[in-house]
Parts: sequence; C-alpha cells; structure tokens
Amino acid sequence: MTEYFTETGSVEAVTARVSPQADARLAEVMASLVKHLHAFVKDVTLTEAEWEIAIDFLTRTGQMCSDTRQEFILLSDVLGVSMLVDAVNNRKPAGSTPSTVFGPFHVDGVPEREMGANISLDGVGEPCLFQGRVVDLDGHPIAGATVDVWSDNADGFYDVQQPDTQPQHNNRGVFRTGDDGRYWFTGIKPVSYPIPDDGPVGQMLGQLGRHPYRPAHMHFLISAPGFARLITHTFVAGDSYLESDAVFGVKAPLIVNFVATEDAESAVRWRADYDFVLPPT
Amino acid sequence: MTEYFTETGSVEAVTARVSPQADARLAEVMASLVKHLHAFVKDVTLTEAEWEIAIDFLTRTGQMCSDTRQEFILLSDVLGVSMLVDAVNNRKPAGSTPSTVFGPFHVDGVPEREMGANISLDGVGEPCLFQGRVVDLDGHPIAGATVDVWSDNADGFYDVQQPDTQPQHNNRGVFRTGDDGRYWFTGIKPVSYPIPDDGPVGQMLGQLGRHPYRPAHMHFLISAPGFARLITHTFVAGDSYLESDAVFGVKAPLIVNFVATEDAESAVRWRADYDFVLPPT
Repeated sequence: MTEYFTETGSVEAVTARVSPQADARLAEVMASLVKHLHAFVKDVTLTEAEWEIAIDFLTRTGQMCSDTRQEFILLSDVLGVSMLVDAVNNRKPAGSTPSTVFGPFHVDGVPEREMGANISLDGVGEPCLFQGRVVDLDGHPIAGATVDVWSDNADGFYDVQQPDTQPQHNNRGVFRTGDDGRYWFTGIKPVSYPIPDDGPVGQMLGQLGRHPYRPAHMHFLISAPGFARLITHTFVAGDSYLESDAVFGVKAPLIVNFVATEDAESAVRWRADYDFVLPPT
Repeated sequence: MTEYFTETGSVEAVTARVSPQADARLAEVMASLVKHLHAFVKDVTLTEAEWEIAIDFLTRTGQMCSDTRQEFILLSDVLGVSMLVDAVNNRKPAGSTPSTVFGPFHVDGVPEREMGANISLDGVGEPCLFQGRVVDLDGHPIAGATVDVWSDNADGFYDVQQPDTQPQHNNRGVFRTGDDGRYWFTGIKPVSYPIPDDGPVGQMLGQLGRHPYRPAHMHFLISAPGFARLITHTFVAGDSYLESDAVFGVKAPLIVNFVATEDAESAVRWRADYDFVLPPT
C-alpha cells in the first residue's frame, strides 16, 4: 500500500523519495531542510496568495544578482543566517577574539605592505592610526601573522564598488607581524553605510520597519601558522547603528574606542588600539 | 544592556528588530521563517562551503526564471511545498474530491464549449471520452458548474509550451453542467512527462537520485455557486509514475480507470468515468 501525500505525512513523503545511493550528507541536509520548510508552512498556515508572493520575491532576488551584486547574500545577512553560519562554524575558546561575517568585499591577492604604511590611497577621510598585537590565548605575541584589512572610504563605499573613482586597493592592506606580534598602519576612521537597499531585500526591510545601515567597521582577516584563521570586524564605539546592525555583525568584544589624537604635528586625528587573540588550530 | 548576536539567541536577535508598526501577519510569517531557517542551520551545522552552494543554487534558480519558465515553482513542487500549501488551504469534509496542485499551465479565458465537444484540436493522441457528474456531498447533481479541463498533448507538452506547433487551446475546454450535473467531452488519454529538468532543480533531482516524471493526468478546475472551488487532477490508473510523481500530486481517490472501448464505429478508444464531489462553501 503506497502512502500518497498527506498534510501529516508530508515530510516523509518527500524524504522517502531520496535514493539510498545519494550522497549521505546531501540527503541529511535536504531532509532537515524539508522538515523545517514544511513546519514553517504548517505553523503559519501559509496562504496560496502568500506562497505566490514568496515565489515572486525569490525570483526577483535571483534576478537582482549580477557580477557586482549578490542579493541572496544580502537576504541571508538580514535574516541573521550569515551570522549563524559563521557562529556554528567558528565556536572558539573563551578569550579568543570573536568572528563575524566575512562580507562580499574582500579581495584576494592584495600585495603585502611595509608595517606602518598608509592604506588610504585617495587621502580622503579622517586619518587614523590602527595598532595593536596579534597574540595567543596566553597573551604571547604571534610572529609571522598576516593582518589583511579592508574598509570603506569616507563616503561608505569599498574600492570594488567604485572602480572608476577609487584607486585600486584603496583602504586595503596586508601586513605581517614580527617577533613582537605588533601591527600598525594608517587608514581612515570608517563610516557607517547602508547595504544596497534598492532591491527586493531593501523592500523587505522597509516593510519590516528595519533600516539598512551597518555601523562603521574595519574588516580583518588574520592568519598565522598553527592558529585558527580569524575573520572579524572592529566597530567604532559610539556609532548610532551599533545596536541595530542590518546584518547582526556586532559583538561586544569587537567594539573599539577610537581616541582623538592631540598631535598638532601629525595629520593623524584618531587612534584605534586593538589586540587580536587567536586560539590554536 | 544590548544583546548582540549569539548562536543561542539568534532567532530573537533577528525577530526583535521588526518594527511594532510592521504588518502583523508579515511579522508573524517572518518570525516563523527565521525560527525554522535558523533551526535548520543549527540542526545540520551547515558549513560555510554548503552555505555558498546554497547561495549559488538559489541565484541560478532565480536566473533560470523567464516568462515561460518558473524554476522556483518547480523547486517548491519537488520539495513538496506546493502540495503542502494546497493541503493546508483546502481541508475538505470526508467524501469530497481531494484537491491537488494547480500547476503553471492553466490558461484564463478559454471559451466555453458545447457539452460533448472534442478538445483535441490537433487530433493527435488516443481519443478518450471523459464523462461523469458534478455532485454535492449527498450525491445530488450540481447544475451550472463550470468544468475547466486542460492536459498535455500526445508528446507530453501543453499548448502554451509549444505555441508555434500546437493550435491555441489544444487539449483545453470549459463546459457547463445542466440540471443533471453531467459533463462529457472527448480528449486524448494523457501521457506522463518530465517536469523541465535542464535547470538547477533538475540537477538537484539528479543528485538526490530522483526522476523528473509526472504520471499521466488531466487537470480540472471546477466551480459552482455555493460550492468550494475544486482544483485537482485525475490520474491514469496503471501509470508507472503513480507512486513517484515528481511533485507529489497523486492522491488515491484521484486515480481513474481508463477503460478501452470496443466500439468499432467510433474513433474513441478509451473511456474515463469520474464524478467530482464538491462541499458547500
């Protein structure tokens, strides 16, 4: 006796169809996806009109994607899914610097620069000295760590978003620590900016009464042999959007005081001190 | 004290961001969606590489959509979501003809035809007489019911999929019952066919070891004043795919014996008798 589709047996009807020869992990992931998708439909008694709205929303989201725009990543971001995937894959021992979302604006292959260099190639923005150490859980310096940093410009855009108006690698740099584990470089104090909100995800945020802004932050990717790779941000203390980051990236230990400097002889106006703590692999 | 994003508090972090002024139903649906999406990520400990595959899959699915192709509806169909949405919105009293998925191939505005007409405009296929009654739960005939029928041609394609080679409204018809509640018309015995499987959804089915076929069926949309609208199929008994419909549309009461006819004087080779039972609104 075949069991056809019923409301109560809906999950089993779908999952039973997967071949025993299918990849075991794929089968596991799909079974869980079907279970939770069906539970969602049942919990809210999704109407046929709402289902049509969802189909249209997903279609428009896919069609908004291009070489320079990833609307499904934005959707994942604003639903907290990106941060959750980061969290379940980066559980770290106490004392470690927490991770946060990678984001779409990292660039591979940025050349390594001399420690202390200025990464603000266009010279626009409020100059800021970034410095600190890369250390292990005992506070010992990590030598040979690469510190890959990227941030937006004074208008809130990354160089890759404005290839015609910003110098290549503007506000990007890769540095390598010496025996003291120290890093230092000059950049600009980053500014808050909205995620692209002229597409379906922005419309959804509007309907939910949510703004699209991210608090000002610097991105860091820190790697050192023998230590877990760290992908994180530092956030500017006092930013208006710290408690409502559109993508939920903020964690309290990542908020940094940007201190105004008093040195009349230097162009640098701010200083941000931060130590990165890496657990072993 | 602000609560930033944590693995355990992920759902609340997202849901708390929705404005109290947002539409209450939208807020309810989104809260449930976020709850189940996050539970899925946690249950399978979705890896970052798997998340990237999912983003790419959804993007390709959206970009496959066009005026004549709806890949997200196919995705909903093969995951059993379309049938589930149908089920939770069409709970019917015992004795009613069950509903099944609407599908993408219905056409509005097909002209009403005289009872008994032949809807096979191209004359290709095995002629079949379809007949029966539209009745209420007590078996009494329903007069003035419209019976809107559509099916694939002998090659498994609907007219709208082949506008250049099939006559408009081939294998479609709208009929209206008289006082006896009876309907009858000639069409062709439908054939099984694959859902379009040259896109991301077809690739997914392949990876799951699932075939893309639907068992042979006729689509019906039946409306009558004072009765619940019925969207359903009838399926050809004995079809190889009855127990593995790619979109889970089969229900036992919808399977119909197509009886070979012996009438040497008629072109009709098959007969399919089926009564549709409509509950009141």
